[in-house]
Amino acid sequence: MARKNAFYAQSGGVTSVINASACGLIETARQHKQQIGKVYAGNNGIIGALREELIDTSKETASTIAALRHTPAGAFGSCRYKLKSLEQNRAEYERLIEVFKAHNIGYFFYNGGGDSADTCLKVSQLSQELGYPIQAIHIPKTVDNDLPFTDNCPGFGSVAKYVAVSTREAGLDVASMCATSTKVFILEVMGRHAGWIAAAGALACTQDGDPPHIILFPEVAFNRERFLRKVKGSVKKYGYCVVVASEGVINPDGSFLADAGTVDAFGHKQLGGVAPALATLIRDELGYKYHWALADYLQRAARHIASATDVEQAYAVGKAALEYALEGKNAVMVTIERGKGKKYRWSLGEAPLAEVANVEQKMPRNYISRDGMGITDACREYLSPLIGGEDYPPYKNGVPQYARLKKVLVAKKLKKGFKLK
Amino acid sequence: MARKNAFYAQSGGVTSVINASACGLIETARQHKQQIGKVYAGNNGIIGALREELIDTSKETASTIAALRHTPAGAFGSCRYKLKSLEQNRAEYERLIEVFKAHNIGYFFYNGGGDSADTCLKVSQLSQELGYPIQAIHIPKTVDNDLPFTDNCPGFGSVAKYVAVSTREAGLDVASMCATSTKVFILEVMGRHAGWIAAAGALACTQDGDPPHIILFPEVAFNRERFLRKVKGSVKKYGYCVVVASEGVINPDGSFLADAGTVDAFGHKQLGGVAPALATLIRDELGYKYHWALADYLQRAARHIASATDVEQAYAVGKAALEYALEGKNAVMVTIERGKGKKYRWSLGEAPLAEVANVEQKMPRNYISRDGMGITDACREYLSPLIGGEDYPPYKNGVPQYARLKKVLVAKKLKKGFKLK
Repeated sequence: MARKNAFYAQSGGVTSVINASACGLIETARQHKQQIGKVYAGNNGIIGALREELIDTSKETASTIAALRHTPAGAFGSCRYKLKSLEQNRAEYERLIEVFKAHNIGYFFYNGGGDSADTCLKVSQLSQELGYPIQAIHIPKTVDNDLPFTDNCPGFGSVAKYVAVSTREAGLDVASMCATSTKVFILEVMGRHAGWIAAAGALACTQDGDPPHIILFPEVAFNRERFLRKVKGSVKKYGYCVVVASEGVINPDGSFLADAGTVDAFGHKQLGGVAPALATLIRDELGYKYHWALADYLQRAARHIASATDVEQAYAVGKAALEYALEGKNAVMVTIERGKGKKYRWSLGEAPLAEVANVEQKMPRNYISRDGMGITDACREYLSPLIGGEDYPPYKNGVPQYARLKKVLVAKKLKKGFKLK
Repeated sequence: MARKNAFYAQSGGVTSVINASACGLIETARQHKQQIGKVYAGNNGIIGALREELIDTSKETASTIAALRHTPAGAFGSCRYKLKSLEQNRAEYERLIEVFKAHNIGYFFYNGGGDSADTCLKVSQLSQELGYPIQAIHIPKTVDNDLPFTDNCPGFGSVAKYVAVSTREAGLDVASMCATSTKVFILEVMGRHAGWIAAAGALACTQDGDPPHIILFPEVAFNRERFLRKVKGSVKKYGYCVVVASEGVINPDGSFLADAGTVDAFGHKQLGGVAPALATLIRDELGYKYHWALADYLQRAARHIASATDVEQAYAVGKAALEYALEGKNAVMVTIERGKGKKYRWSLGEAPLAEVANVEQKMPRNYISRDGMGITDACREYLSPLIGGEDYPPYKNGVPQYARLKKVLVAKKLKKGFKLK
């Protein structure tokens, strides 16, 4: 059997460890040169394949590839571009397979969330149909921790650590100021439909009374009166109140508390503004001085405070994806499985893509406290090991040194270009 | 001469290293027990003295005091409470001196910015007048880096490092997304009247084209057309644009670009909202997809990414303050002096408080690039060593371990309480 090349692409919102998965995959491929050819990376994700813009990773030095392990964001470029259904735009899938065929690509590795799992599955299916079978392996990545079957998603542990650390630090700040100044601090974090990131704020609390005092989840409809009562109670008892709020907090009628009214390329609503909305409410109803922060990209790019566990797992799922491919696996997602017992242990597994695609894993109700504004012990037990350990990048002159890629494109072989719809 | 006790208080907005100054001062005092009695800390800053709420630091263990070195925010509590002028409220100063006398306090250490330097001076002066002379030493602290006479202010280096690191990380994130999604990212940082913090964003850039592409300073009036032209140019050239904007950006008429219309206890205008204001402008005029972050307290509390140089200096100014006091100095601020030569060296000096109080050190014009939206090489040379080195706190279960104080209050000796005006 002739050696086939591999195609790897990053999809959707990036994380501080998605490049660690790329690193694991590329380094492992380089160790199996008898079985696998070159690894091409999509320039800006899947649109790199559609446009036949393939980055030849073999042109990057071993030390550059190694540096991907500690480099945040998507080193090859990512994209928010969801392929339509086969019925709606079969031409896109056919183009992908045409490009893969032209470059002797037999392995498709797609590093992303639920949407990309769906694309991955369809490429696998259609390639069979068209007589050029491609093994498609999905490498999980979401800061939202919302993929099914895997115990957790690479990318989440680091954003969770960022939120826990930031909440602890900002909490100390407010505690020092509250006698005469700021009484309420609100940190708005990501998590459109799942409250995992907001929940991680609770890891800042290790003693009764520690911040955060309130967590708001997208899974629990916002109750104005109970929220205000709890803010007031916290200020009375501790002198201040720290709130961690998910961007996806919803009103009782199901609308987002802060709906900006715009949608992204996936058709998802663009959010932002829960923190100022809550701050305004607190000012108007309780009159407390407040501060709020919106971490936005800082939280998911914060490789400087990544979880060592997360980095290890991200590397491992990339490595496993390559190994699964060489073992002949197809249409699966690499999963992380948690061992039984008190001490945290994990291993890798797999889940069929047909069952993964487009399923969202929300927080289970028994992870959220009875009043809907905190987490339970079960949740803490689940979250805590995921932020374990520090994995610092190297620094020069006070700033982290991240990989810089050459990104040499492979010569095009197809005559026709491709215009994105 | 009988041993006198010392009083130490934290003032105004806290920083990630102000406790390192407290650590330096208290550890040094403990080494000079023949010359100096106990160190009392103001519970919530100067109002702790007014209310006779003195924290007895001798009740804290050596390891707790040592842990202050790596603990952010104000461990004894700070306050935004500016004493009025002697003419307006002489009673406040007299009360301070009365409390100091009652507790045999001969040394007053005030750890803060320009406002506290002024208070420090007045306590020194009035105590002479009232026949109970107190040596008052000011320990510099501002994230804004706006104190005169000192080469830099403890607290600034760490927030500068946070902003440089965050800009680099978020910049990589936007670069990965810009092909199909976010094209402009705006990071709003602190700095009401001085652009030092915003300037530090430039340290993320080490190669031509690196983010940030635009920096907005309070020292330069905002020019809408030139700003939009530069955003557009950056997106055309690099595919994206990263902006670091100071909260204090002003319109050509001198008003703040984002004026929330409220004032704090010092009479300073409360700001916030430069980033969303700029984002709206970009959306309306250029139509680019944008993201923005407001770091707020996260930036000044971020001990996890503190500058090692800053931590060392913060400790050193606290230590020196105690030593200056024992040498008989009075009404001075400890300063940091930069050595000549290419390699960065620093030593400590002093400046008379009479000249320090209420002077604001803005960015010199030759530190700002000709177009007003970047920094010069001279500025880079000045800033770079201040963020040098990492000084990581200890971690347990994934979160930093910060000091927890007992805060035992000294028994009150005065019959009369004191009501803040």
